[in-house]
Amino acid sequence: MGKLVTFGELMLRLEAPGRLRISQARSYDAVYGGGEANVAVSAANYGMEADFVTKLPENPVADAAIAELRGLGVGTSHIARGGARMGIYFVEHGASQRASSVIYDRAHSSISEAEAADFDWDLIFDGAERFHFTGITPALSPACASICEDACRAAKARGVIVSCDLNYRKKLWSTEEAGRVMSRLMKYVDICIANEEDADKVFGIRADDTDVKTGTISDEGYRQVCRRLTERFGFSTVAVTLRESVNADVNNWSAMMYRGGEFYKSKKYEIHIVDRVGGGDSFSGGLIYADHAGMEPQAALEFAVAASCLKHTIVGDYNRVTKKEVEALASGDGSGRVSR
Amino acid sequence: MGKLVTFGELMLRLEAPGRLRISQARSYDAVYGGGEANVAVSAANYGMEADFVTKLPENPVADAAIAELRGLGVGTSHIARGGARMGIYFVEHGASQRASSVIYDRAHSSISEAEAADFDWDLIFDGAERFHFTGITPALSPACASICEDACRAAKARGVIVSCDLNYRKKLWSTEEAGRVMSRLMKYVDICIANEEDADKVFGIRADDTDVKTGTISDEGYRQVCRRLTERFGFSTVAVTLRESVNADVNNWSAMMYRGGEFYKSKKYEIHIVDRVGGGDSFSGGLIYADHAGMEPQAALEFAVAASCLKHTIVGDYNRVTKKEVEALASGDGSGRVSR
Amino acid sequence: MGKLVTFGELMLRLEAPGRLRISQARSYDAVYGGGEANVAVSAANYGMEADFVTKLPENPVADAAIAELRGLGVGTSHIARGGARMGIYFVEHGASQRASSVIYDRAHSSISEAEAADFDWDLIFDGAERFHFTGITPALSPACASICEDACRAAKARGVIVSCDLNYRKKLWSTEEAGRVMSRLMKYVDICIANEEDADKVFGIRADDTDVKTGTISDEGYRQVCRRLTERFGFSTVAVTLRESVNADVNNWSAMMYRGGEFYKSKKYEIHIVDRVGGGDSFSGGLIYADHAGMEPQAALEFAVAASCLKHTIVGDYNRVTKKEVEALASGDGSGRVSR
Amino acid sequence: MGKLVTFGELMLRLEAPGRLRISQARSYDAVYGGGEANVAVSAANYGMEADFVTKLPENPVADAAIAELRGLGVGTSHIARGGARMGIYFVEHGASQRASSVIYDRAHSSISEAEAADFDWDLIFDGAERFHFTGITPALSPACASICEDACRAAKARGVIVSCDLNYRKKLWSTEEAGRVMSRLMKYVDICIANEEDADKVFGIRADDTDVKTGTISDEGYRQVCRRLTERFGFSTVAVTLRESVNADVNNWSAMMYRGGEFYKSKKYEIHIVDRVGGGDSFSGGLIYADHAGMEPQAALEFAVAASCLKHTIVGDYNRVTKKEVEALASGDGSGRVSR
Amino acid sequence: MGKLVTFGELMLRLEAPGRLRISQARSYDAVYGGGEANVAVSAANYGMEADFVTKLPENPVADAAIAELRGLGVGTSHIARGGARMGIYFVEHGASQRASSVIYDRAHSSISEAEAADFDWDLIFDGAERFHFTGITPALSPACASICEDACRAAKARGVIVSCDLNYRKKLWSTEEAGRVMSRLMKYVDICIANEEDADKVFGIRADDTDVKTGTISDEGYRQVCRRLTERFGFSTVAVTLRESVNADVNNWSAMMYRGGEFYKSKKYEIHIVDRVGGGDSFSGGLIYADHAGMEPQAALEFAVAASCLKHTIVGDYNRVTKKEVEALASGDGSGRVSR
Amino acid sequence: MGKLVTFGELMLRLEAPGRLRISQARSYDAVYGGGEANVAVSAANYGMEADFVTKLPENPVADAAIAELRGLGVGTSHIARGGARMGIYFVEHGASQRASSVIYDRAHSSISEAEAADFDWDLIFDGAERFHFTGITPALSPACASICEDACRAAKARGVIVSCDLNYRKKLWSTEEAGRVMSRLMKYVDICIANEEDADKVFGIRADDTDVKTGTISDEGYRQVCRRLTERFGFSTVAVTLRESVNADVNNWSAMMYRGGEFYKSKKYEIHIVDRVGGGDSFSGGLIYADHAGMEPQAALEFAVAASCLKHTIVGDYNRVTKKEVEALASGDGSGRVSR
Repeated sequence: MGKLVTFGELMLRLEAPGRLRISQARSYDAVYGGGEANVAVSAANYGMEADFVTKLPENPVADAAIAELRGLGVGTSHIARGGARMGIYFVEHGASQRASSVIYDRAHSSISEAEAADFDWDLIFDGAERFHFTGITPALSPACASICEDACRAAKARGVIVSCDLNYRKKLWSTEEAGRVMSRLMKYVDICIANEEDADKVFGIRADDTDVKTGTISDEGYRQVCRRLTERFGFSTVAVTLRESVNADVNNWSAMMYRGGEFYKSKKYEIHIVDRVGGGDSFSGGLIYADHAGMEPQAALEFAVAASCLKHTIVGDYNRVTKKEVEALASGDGSGRVSR
Repeated sequence: MGKLVTFGELMLRLEAPGRLRISQARSYDAVYGGGEANVAVSAANYGMEADFVTKLPENPVADAAIAELRGLGVGTSHIARGGARMGIYFVEHGASQRASSVIYDRAHSSISEAEAADFDWDLIFDGAERFHFTGITPALSPACASICEDACRAAKARGVIVSCDLNYRKKLWSTEEAGRVMSRLMKYVDICIANEEDADKVFGIRADDTDVKTGTISDEGYRQVCRRLTERFGFSTVAVTLRESVNADVNNWSAMMYRGGEFYKSKKYEIHIVDRVGGGDSFSGGLIYADHAGMEPQAALEFAVAASCLKHTIVGDYNRVTKKEVEALASGDGSGRVSR
Repeated sequence: MGKLVTFGELMLRLEAPGRLRISQARSYDAVYGGGEANVAVSAANYGMEADFVTKLPENPVADAAIAELRGLGVGTSHIARGGARMGIYFVEHGASQRASSVIYDRAHSSISEAEAADFDWDLIFDGAERFHFTGITPALSPACASICEDACRAAKARGVIVSCDLNYRKKLWSTEEAGRVMSRLMKYVDICIANEEDADKVFGIRADDTDVKTGTISDEGYRQVCRRLTERFGFSTVAVTLRESVNADVNNWSAMMYRGGEFYKSKKYEIHIVDRVGGGDSFSGGLIYADHAGMEPQAALEFAVAASCLKHTIVGDYNRVTKKEVEALASGDGSGRVSR
Repeated sequence: MGKLVTFGELMLRLEAPGRLRISQARSYDAVYGGGEANVAVSAANYGMEADFVTKLPENPVADAAIAELRGLGVGTSHIARGGARMGIYFVEHGASQRASSVIYDRAHSSISEAEAADFDWDLIFDGAERFHFTGITPALSPACASICEDACRAAKARGVIVSCDLNYRKKLWSTEEAGRVMSRLMKYVDICIANEEDADKVFGIRADDTDVKTGTISDEGYRQVCRRLTERFGFSTVAVTLRESVNADVNNWSAMMYRGGEFYKSKKYEIHIVDRVGGGDSFSGGLIYADHAGMEPQAALEFAVAASCLKHTIVGDYNRVTKKEVEALASGDGSGRVSR
Repeated sequence: MGKLVTFGELMLRLEAPGRLRISQARSYDAVYGGGEANVAVSAANYGMEADFVTKLPENPVADAAIAELRGLGVGTSHIARGGARMGIYFVEHGASQRASSVIYDRAHSSISEAEAADFDWDLIFDGAERFHFTGITPALSPACASICEDACRAAKARGVIVSCDLNYRKKLWSTEEAGRVMSRLMKYVDICIANEEDADKVFGIRADDTDVKTGTISDEGYRQVCRRLTERFGFSTVAVTLRESVNADVNNWSAMMYRGGEFYKSKKYEIHIVDRVGGGDSFSGGLIYADHAGMEPQAALEFAVAASCLKHTIVGDYNRVTKKEVEALASGDGSGRVSR
Repeated sequence: MGKLVTFGELMLRLEAPGRLRISQARSYDAVYGGGEANVAVSAANYGMEADFVTKLPENPVADAAIAELRGLGVGTSHIARGGARMGIYFVEHGASQRASSVIYDRAHSSISEAEAADFDWDLIFDGAERFHFTGITPALSPACASICEDACRAAKARGVIVSCDLNYRKKLWSTEEAGRVMSRLMKYVDICIANEEDADKVFGIRADDTDVKTGTISDEGYRQVCRRLTERFGFSTVAVTLRESVNADVNNWSAMMYRGGEFYKSKKYEIHIVDRVGGGDSFSGGLIYADHAGMEPQAALEFAVAASCLKHTIVGDYNRVTKKEVEALASGDGSGRVSR
């Protein structure tokens, strides 16, 4: 089975312990993660060969991040080293009516200041069958957008299947910039993954019947969005994750998928959240694996949603679950009975 | 905007970590708090000038308590120093059907043995527009009751608006003593804050239709209580917090208010509790601020309830939230979505 | 009041902190426990004299386990010392849809390699009125099964009431072995305790209308099981605990009992779980105490269920609650209000 | 071998973690201890039967303290329960040139307000051969001094050997009060233990050649002190511990003893300190055990000094070492080689 | 007594816990500090009014840093808010032969991108008698150098005494840049503080007899350096701290001072280090206070050295010691005896 | 450069936190290590390709151990999976005169019950230039001894250089067994590493002038031992580590080496110990690397000793230091100055 390559930023997450506010923190829990690294870890956990590509500074903080990825079975040999710093973000874990909050300190990171010459895509894609990136990577800098395009072009030239999670981040770019850059990249993309806001924010694609006040969309609305995305960009697959935020502790989670003119809808899980960071990425990772493994669309979607349901119970960005655990949940056992 | 003065005891809270019982604790988490200090912190967080008055011993434990308050923007220059000790209480955090429990070790504290000469109320009230105390302060000792009366008298003489949270504590005094002393103080009070039991315990005022078995009271019952309190003591405002304890982890929380012959009722929040100590105080702090800022009664009540809802998600006695956060919740966003 | 003797294995539980997976653990929380020790601690907490009998190696890990038991009021003077090691198990605490999981490392423990000569049952039962063991003990080794039988025989010879929690563990023996050995022991047993699976797995006794697909059993089904157990083995009492696993964080918990031809059914509690290990043992401990104290069947059952409900809120195997706390819950206060 | 009875206060020690100052502490490590309890634990560790007598309030903090003692093998059945509170002290661990510091909050403790009727000395001394107290106990209150005298009188009446560690604490009483009360008690004492200051502070007994400026005393000076103590009170044995404080991390530690007209001097240890609280008590505990076990004076002194040397490496007040470990050090192995 | 103003960067220090390497860290202890803030805290601790001036972003991390300073009694009302980020540095605590190491991530901090208009020096110096900065501040950016000069000029215009710790940092600028900028600033400086390398690195001033191989300098050599600094820049006082690094755990620490043509040399302390960050700043803080309080040169020097000796035993950048504690050490008590 | 293969046991080390005794531990710090894995990590850190071979059970504890090794750059693809358990040992960290102590629980581990068929040495040694094992591996079981011999034979057949650290462990086998088995293996060994006791315990080789009482050996004595080892077994190199245990916190550390008829002696380091486990292995790892890199004997010995000196400052078994750090120490910088 050919390998998966992902490309993006790897950050240091500093999180106030327990339910403390950042203003109360005397220490921070430190984990590493980032959309594309998270997807690579998911794939590696399920037994797929996976390579993560980024640029990181030459210091022990970055060394530790790389060692953890390598320990988790992700290939790290194409990570460029150099530049000034590793992106950081501070997290405060919400509770009940208090939302989690995030302070980004990612400007001037090594990857955001990387250059085309840092990556030899022909070498990187040797043996690859899949390439994945998110909308965060091209948003980091014009150079990153351009490198993303290099990667996409090289991928398509080799017949590598390209997936992209739109992942719009308003702190990184405007909707206009996002629309312009992402539209250019979409022509290389086979599988498009989005949440309920991304298609609107990035491409101005929304359902006719979107309730302006509440933002709620009907199932039919989501189908419209999927069809319109497919019409505009020619995706083979569009997948949409659906998060209902009851409060900071409880979310409902499901997804739908549009492929070959058919719509698929997953089970919905009520999740008591341990750590929701990386929830979307674990869906992408599950879907890429399931598709790669040749699962039928409905089964692939259920695998991806079950995988991301479990991610919400795992500390840290990476979805440290096995294929067997995902399959058990997808096939129905969510009772939480002790496995002795 | 004139400042708020609050007067009461500041204690060291020693809490068994996590869900451990006190009998299992090998360490205690240490925070500082007390009803009136909590109110002062709330007000300071919303941008009001606030001064907290108490008496504390001259030792590093008390120094740390004062430094924290000063760091949070509360004026501490009128805190008297001296006496034997700081009051302590041990807390064991409940879970599910197991209630939290508290062991008080507050006798002989510096404030409970304070004398009138420790406080110069004319100096303290310089520039003040509000004064707040709770029913705990006069319960500490006859001298404290008398000092409270001094403070109330000085406040009224300067036109300072006085608020009081009845806060009946059966470990500190009998209902008879409480009734006698508190009745004497009520003549200075403009805004009376209470929970469902206080009016009954302290003044023997209860609704006609109180269900003797379950203690539940109808809305009309609460209105009666408010009216009777107002009739007896001439309060301008009576506010009542309504806690429904589902279990030790989940409470419903709302409030009502009676002012100018009108009743106001707030939204009700289902709260997954992080730390409920200081919940009532954060209501008082929110109400005092909102009233001081000139909000309409319904808006003020919603602000106070939202503030105290958020307090239940904060570790420690102090309500470390901003005005903006309270307003966001009061105006409807309790979904707990990540604020990136 | 005569004392309770329990006999079984005492293990070291190593648990990944918080919600970390074992693969993420850099430290383990260490507690001690085991079915029969847990029952002894429960009884001691309620004021009953209790002795725990086992064999443990001579090293400081075992010393600490014994010192904790002694501190909790359990007699430890009949614990044999020697052999190679203390059984260990690693626990990973589940969350939401992710189940808790357990890795056993208990082979070759001192108790599993104990010999008959390690225990002088005449001496041990001096002053005893009750003897309790679980189906785990005879499963440890043929010698343990034989020692169990020695103990049962000695108990019956002295008129000691014998209780047994069937507690089938598939990692320790097959259903065939279990059936053979346990049937031999049942003739000494007065009070049989089981969960919904045990009677089926150990004795092949199941309700006629068990739903093959979902495993759900009707109330009438449980009654059948109780009657059949009683018919086959002549128990004076059969008690069955009923756990409904909503997810890894929330379980419903109740029990039923069959005695003197009458069926009793308890209240059902919705529990937000802190630590479910030892939940069944706390039921046994509560039932033994309540029966010993002469409570009526319904009251005894409610005491046992309330006790085990509270256990789910306690960290560690041992049910660190007082008789007063159990009685308060059994008689209706599960609101989790702060006890000040 | 008959048992040891000790009588005194048991306190909760709250210690700022690591090398943090109290003003920086956000949690406190909690241990229990007190001079006489520490001695009882030492004796129990070496295999002597030991009973600790005190009065403690009825709350879970005190329950935990008692459970720990019982777990360590100390008899706790004569501990009176009741009164208001358990004494507390806060500790800040020094480092290098910064001394450790202590804040006492022990006034109004249950033991300091105990009455004669709380203790039935005839019952308590049943089976006893030794009684030990320190100068702290009679300093707690006049009632405590009187109860101490009751105990001494009852002890002597039964032929129990009485030992006392003078342990002068200037925060509890003046040198005058100490001199008056302790002189009265000394007539019952057989073995007197002191450090370099106690004899001077309590009885005004000092060496002729004490260097007024530095407080250093020659060996001959110590001999004089021992002889004068013996002459005045008729002790059978006087033992003096000698601490040289290099800095907060390093102390030298040795002792001398005067018995039957002979002087004995121990080895001196250079100690890298982990926790020096209870260092003196572990000397008393070692000496009482060694004497009771019939060791020769020099051997007994070496045992006591080695025991207390080891105590300085143990976290908490209690000297958690075995007789074998003490003997190994006393007989020469202080190299700290790993014992595999 | 007029106030002290200090100006510089305030950073977040993230430190691997205990003796872990950064590559092993799963969490970081978080403290705040920076040369000039450290000096302000020292002064405030000794009772001097002190104001710290910097620029910090508007986020909760910076809020917490400011709250802590305010809690410690430092004025924070002139801190400009805005800009992108707070400087961060990662620390790994060395041990024995392994040196501590530091990773700086301070580029693009708010202060380094501050502009002249952020600070109104006339307002800031209202009531000031002292101004202090270190060589780090002008090294942050050309704008910072220029703002420093503005501050110095405004200070001199009001007769404020200016002190500067040269503090050369090779990661921030070259020796050439440092020499050029610092020479320009020196004309405003009255009191120059340096360590053994600074004068050489910044101004090329070194002793004639410096041993080229080992870098050791004789006392006479230091005197030469002091004289040459004074001759070139006309300082009223030059103070030099002398650190001898035995290993990462033990340092010897002393200082000398040149004033009015006289040389003063302090005692030397052998320090077992808890945290050496801020050691030099605590010397500056002590010297400024002592000078301001009118101590004689030798006494002032001893106060400053004792203060900085104690700092090495304190966790975090800030020297949390009282004047009384410094005086006790300066006057001779470094024995580390427990202060009860 | 060809790779290094090491073969042995990988264990879980459970260590009581800080300076707590095992009997006080409520949690254990968990690290992984073992003589041969430690050597592989050292080599990988210095840039050598390294493969570690063992057998481990299929569970998440072992998964985590393998992931960590892989993260550190050690090849893990030849680790056999299966068997019952991972060996465990409990550690209590000593202090001052109290020695560290260890409780082994390693019997029945997967590696000790491994069979020849678990390892395909021809495959494993593909590309290898070095093979290393310690005397612990053949001591685990007769099968392990036999597998070791298989490995040695395969290594020699391919011209792989074999090194062995004698590492006698009396808990695993008698001196007689050790002598018999190890003598058989020595014929394959090129480089023999030992401490002062091993040659005597395993082969009965000791210096003529060994002081019977103190065990001290002169330099000439060590030379004799080296010569006799070389004469008997034909080693190309014999290296001896020399540990002087001042106390549990401070050790002196040096080594000597005999090669080609010449003796080499290293510098001696006084080490303040953080964690001494793995100290000897870090010497072996340093020596193998240095020799492989072609350093001269004296330089290689200094590299190995400096590497192991640094190991004593690192938490955990693995020597997490870089080649550059070792070289800096070997070439003289042990001052512990902060590296900024």
